[in-house]
Amino acid sequence: MKTISENRAFGGVQGVYSHASAATGTEMTFGLFLPAEAEEGLVPVLWYLSGLTCTHENAMVKAGAQRWAAEVGIALVFPDTSPRGEDVPNDAAYDLGQGAGFYVNATQSPWDKNFRMWDYVTEELPRELFKAFPIAEAAQAITGHSMGGHGALTIAMSFPGRFRSVSAFAPICNPTASDWGRKQFGAYLGPDEAAWAAHDTTLLMKKRGFDGPILIDQGTSDQFLDLLKPEALAGAMAERRQGGSFRMQKGYDHSYFFVSTFMEEHVAFHAGALNA
Amino acid sequence: MKTISENRAFGGVQGVYSHASAATGTEMTFGLFLPAEAEEGLVPVLWYLSGLTCTHENAMVKAGAQRWAAEVGIALVFPDTSPRGEDVPNDAAYDLGQGAGFYVNATQSPWDKNFRMWDYVTEELPRELFKAFPIAEAAQAITGHSMGGHGALTIAMSFPGRFRSVSAFAPICNPTASDWGRKQFGAYLGPDEAAWAAHDTTLLMKKRGFDGPILIDQGTSDQFLDLLKPEALAGAMAERRQGGSFRMQKGYDHSYFFVSTFMEEHVAFHAGALNA
Repeated sequence: MKTISENRAFGGVQGVYSHASAATGTEMTFGLFLPAEAEEGLVPVLWYLSGLTCTHENAMVKAGAQRWAAEVGIALVFPDTSPRGEDVPNDAAYDLGQGAGFYVNATQSPWDKNFRMWDYVTEELPRELFKAFPIAEAAQAITGHSMGGHGALTIAMSFPGRFRSVSAFAPICNPTASDWGRKQFGAYLGPDEAAWAAHDTTLLMKKRGFDGPILIDQGTSDQFLDLLKPEALAGAMAERRQGGSFRMQKGYDHSYFFVSTFMEEHVAFHAGALNA
Repeated sequence: MKTISENRAFGGVQGVYSHASAATGTEMTFGLFLPAEAEEGLVPVLWYLSGLTCTHENAMVKAGAQRWAAEVGIALVFPDTSPRGEDVPNDAAYDLGQGAGFYVNATQSPWDKNFRMWDYVTEELPRELFKAFPIAEAAQAITGHSMGGHGALTIAMSFPGRFRSVSAFAPICNPTASDWGRKQFGAYLGPDEAAWAAHDTTLLMKKRGFDGPILIDQGTSDQFLDLLKPEALAGAMAERRQGGSFRMQKGYDHSYFFVSTFMEEHVAFHAGALNA
C-alpha cells in the first residue's frame, strides 16, 4: 500500500493510496477519509462509488462528505471507477472503458483482462482496507452517484448482511433497458442478456430487495433522466413493499451541486443504520 | 452579462456568468451563489478571493461554502484571479501572469494593459453585480485563500466602511518581504517599493487596521509558511490592538481540505457581522 497524499481535514485525515491489484492487474488508486476516532479504534465505513468519467478524486474534493462523516465518526472510501493505464483497453466514448467500469467483471475480449471492478470493489479492496486501516468490517454502508449509484445498489442487494444501509444519488436504475447499460453490458458481458440481470438494480429489486433501509435522491431537472429511469426503480420498490425513501428533488440536476446538497442527509441516514 | 451555467444547490442557485470587462479589456468569468432568500429580496454577500493558479471555479466546487451560505441566506461571489486569453500576457511560472493577478493594478509593461484586478474586484465587478443581481451593497463581507487572503485583507483595509468583516485562510501576509510578493510587485508595479506598500497586509495593519472583526486561520503544517509569513501579521495585529482572531490550526496544510474544514466557522463569523 503506497501513500500518495495525506491531508488533515475536519479533524481527521483525507488520504490517497494505491496498491497493485490482482483483480484488475493494474495499480489501483483510492481515497480514504479517516475521522479522528480512527486514532482510538475501529470506525464504521461508508463506501462511495463514483459515476462515469470520475476517478477516486471527484467526490473526494467535491461532494463535501467529510464534514458529515467527521461529525459521526465514520470513514469514507472512494474507489476509482475502472482500471487505468496505457496498457489497459479503452474506448473513445466517455461511457465505455477507462472511467466507465460499471462495477462488473468483464467476460469479453479485450475487457476481460482488466475490467474486473466487481471483484475489485467487493472482494479485493475491502480485504486490503480492513488489513491496512482501522475500519470495522462489521459496520459497512454504501452509496454512490449515477453509475456509482448503480454499483452501490447492485452490490448491496448481492451481498445480504454485508451493508447495514444503502443510498444513491441519481442512480442508473435499469441499465438493461437504457443506453447507459445495454452498450456497456454488451461490450463487457456479451450479447446474452441473461448475464446482465445480476447487474440491474430494478431487476434485483423485483427479485430480491434489500434487507435494510434505502434512501434515493433524484433531481427533477437531471439532464439524464431518460437514461437513469428512476420510474423503473421507484415502481419496483413500491411493488415489492421495500422499506425506503425515493425522493424526487425539485429543480436539481445531475451535478455535484446536487450531490453535495443532499450529502448531509445521506451521511446522517447511514450513521443511523450504523449506530454511529 | 452572459449565463455560462446555473445549477440548483442547497435550495438556491450556483451560477457562472461572464461579462466584457473595461478594467481588464477581456471577458471575465465569475461564480455567484444566490441562496433561496434572493428570490424574495436583497441578500448580503460574502466575497471569496482565490489563490494562485485558481479560476473562479476552484473554491466554488471545493470549499463547501454554499451549504453554510444557504443556511444564513447570504450570497457568495467567486471572481477569477486574473484576466485570461491568448492575447493576454503570461509567464511560464505559475505565480506570475494568468492565474496570479495578486489583486493589483499593474503599471508596468506588458502587464499594465490587462492586469488591473484591483479595479476589477473593487469597482467594476461590484457595480455589475449590484446592477444585475439582488445583492445588498450595504451588507458586504470578504474572505480569501492564500493570494486571495492577501487580496481580501488589503481590500478590506483600503475601503473603510465597505466590508462589515474580513477573514482569510492562510493569507500571504507580508508580500513585500516574501518571494510571493517581491517578484510579482516588481513585475506589475515596478522597482519603486513605495508603490508596493498599499498592497501589503502587514504594513496596512500597522498603518491603518480594520474597523470591524477579523478572523484568520493558518495551518501549522502548511508547506508555504515561509512565503506566507503569518508571524508578521499576527505580530502586527497584536501590536495595533486590532480586534480579531489569528488561529494556528494544528496539522493542517495549504489545501482546500484545510479551507473546507474551517469554512463553516468563517461563514458563521461573517453572518454574525452581517446580521444574517
